[in-house]
Amino acid sequence: MRAEIDQQPDIFADLLASREEIARAAARIAAYRPRFVLLAARGSSDHAALYAKYLIEVLLQLPVGLASPSVTTVYGARPDLTGVLLISISQSGGSPDLLAVTEAGRERGALTASVTNTPGSPLDEAAELGVHVRAGTEHAVAATKTYTATLLALYLLIDAVRGGTGQHAAGLPDLAAAALRDGRAAVEEAVQRYRSTEHLVTTGRGYSSATAAEAALKLAETSYLPARAYSGADLLHGPVAAIDADTAVLALCSSGAGGAALREVLQAIHERGAEVCAIGSGAAAARASHRIPVPDSAEEVAPVLEVLPVQRLALGLALHRGGDPDSPRGLRKITRTR
Amino acid sequence: MRAEIDQQPDIFADLLASREEIARAAARIAAYRPRFVLLAARGSSDHAALYAKYLIEVLLQLPVGLASPSVTTVYGARPDLTGVLLISISQSGGSPDLLAVTEAGRERGALTASVTNTPGSPLDEAAELGVHVRAGTEHAVAATKTYTATLLALYLLIDAVRGGTGQHAAGLPDLAAAALRDGRAAVEEAVQRYRSTEHLVTTGRGYSSATAAEAALKLAETSYLPARAYSGADLLHGPVAAIDADTAVLALCSSGAGGAALREVLQAIHERGAEVCAIGSGAAAARASHRIPVPDSAEEVAPVLEVLPVQRLALGLALHRGGDPDSPRGLRKITRTR
Repeated sequence: MRAEIDQQPDIFADLLASREEIARAAARIAAYRPRFVLLAARGSSDHAALYAKYLIEVLLQLPVGLASPSVTTVYGARPDLTGVLLISISQSGGSPDLLAVTEAGRERGALTASVTNTPGSPLDEAAELGVHVRAGTEHAVAATKTYTATLLALYLLIDAVRGGTGQHAAGLPDLAAAALRDGRAAVEEAVQRYRSTEHLVTTGRGYSSATAAEAALKLAETSYLPARAYSGADLLHGPVAAIDADTAVLALCSSGAGGAALREVLQAIHERGAEVCAIGSGAAAARASHRIPVPDSAEEVAPVLEVLPVQRLALGLALHRGGDPDSPRGLRKITRTR
Repeated sequence: MRAEIDQQPDIFADLLASREEIARAAARIAAYRPRFVLLAARGSSDHAALYAKYLIEVLLQLPVGLASPSVTTVYGARPDLTGVLLISISQSGGSPDLLAVTEAGRERGALTASVTNTPGSPLDEAAELGVHVRAGTEHAVAATKTYTATLLALYLLIDAVRGGTGQHAAGLPDLAAAALRDGRAAVEEAVQRYRSTEHLVTTGRGYSSATAAEAALKLAETSYLPARAYSGADLLHGPVAAIDADTAVLALCSSGAGGAALREVLQAIHERGAEVCAIGSGAAAARASHRIPVPDSAEEVAPVLEVLPVQRLALGLALHRGGDPDSPRGLRKITRTR
């Protein structure tokens, strides 16, 4: 897991240098002019889908839905998807439920695209357009490099659909290297602080709500810390009551509109007596008890960077709490759900 | 909260007897022939929206998206929503972000409908179609009767759009009374069992994934128990690793396809050594250590019934753990998020 975390700057550079496939898929999508987009994914890829939902809604101004695979696999629904773009996201390209959703979507008129790390996988074969995230084989069960490479591929794809050149991504290899280098001490401090924590909440708004969800999953699956993730606004609609002085809070504080909108959320958390660790450099971080720095970037690509210290934190906590981050109990690399 | 829980059978009977408004809204929606549906909600209403998502996808065979209000309020997106049905769900009808989403949706071509408990509220005024759930004033901060009345109104509305008569709902007043009466002892046993629990996971599949989400929220906001909710399949994609013998699991085991699909999930939980309390009468409940009975019903309306013992459990745990279920710390009845 450590080695795969450290590969990420090079993987970003490689993906940025190899965009022909993404450009072809984007041209097909732009010509298709979708009226609506459906995203299908599970696990970490589902958090990449949440990131893509914001990108598509904000940058392409299209409505988006996250598909519930059980509607296809358990209830047998076959909606008319004429004019719909269906993007299925899966590192392995091997989950039977996503394959079923993609096959059913294609039959029912959708333009289907897959975003995977596995050329030739069943999902890659089933979709009309295939985007490969080029992260190389991932050995650790907990996804790290495939998650960020998927985010970057989705940003490049969606920006290309609107004719963009992915300009906000150009600096990501260097910024990622800086994030990994400069965040080391603050992450190590957070590991010491959270090594006995029993209750942890993650929160973010907008693009960064995807990072909050991924952070909770990464901590749960590697260090078995039962973390809960909430978008900032949802947190205020009830779950904030369960936060107290024994709750650790990880807040994704990117600069930009999403990070700024987190300020009132952090105020409510502060009133409940919880300590907040801010990840990022946005103004909302000023309220936090401590901070893990992340280099500044355009808000749209901040999730690619801000998850890097989270991965290091999950790895560090797993080692301190007695877990095996490469092979967590009860999990396999490919989860076959129906 | 106790009084409002007990009112639910009568509220269902009243709503079933007063369906003119729902019939008018359904006729307008059917004539509009939406190509896609967006749902906007927060808190408990967001779980009602998740229930509606399954109803619409399975019964109407239409694709559905859950709107992220921040896309409108924080990022200013204004997508073309011609041909889209936008349903905004809010007990109070007063949350500024839902109002902004509804106003923006109407401007951009959507047919807008609101489902509220508050005639004349800002949301009710902003939407073209208004459905009132007729639950009466709810005094407790934790939503109980407004949640189930909203589920029932959504079922009646969606079934009416396809020309149905809401036949599966006809027995709900009696079944709800039976659920409240017959579940009492099992709920009291569960209260004793969970009074010191620190880690609780809720899970369900299909329609019942909405109940799993609502159960976690209800427990968090009333008894401050930091419960986590997962759809069954998502649980297997990582979070199951954080389950151990100290984790209590509440599993929504309705009869029907969703309940049956939970069986492999409960097997994985069993392997991790956790005790499972099954709510419902589906076959998956056989694997559980104990069970809270819920009268059988069609799967589409099971969420209206299976949440009743959950509400009683939340109330009982709040009283035992020292919370004030009518007025949880840090919450107000109307949460104004932007």
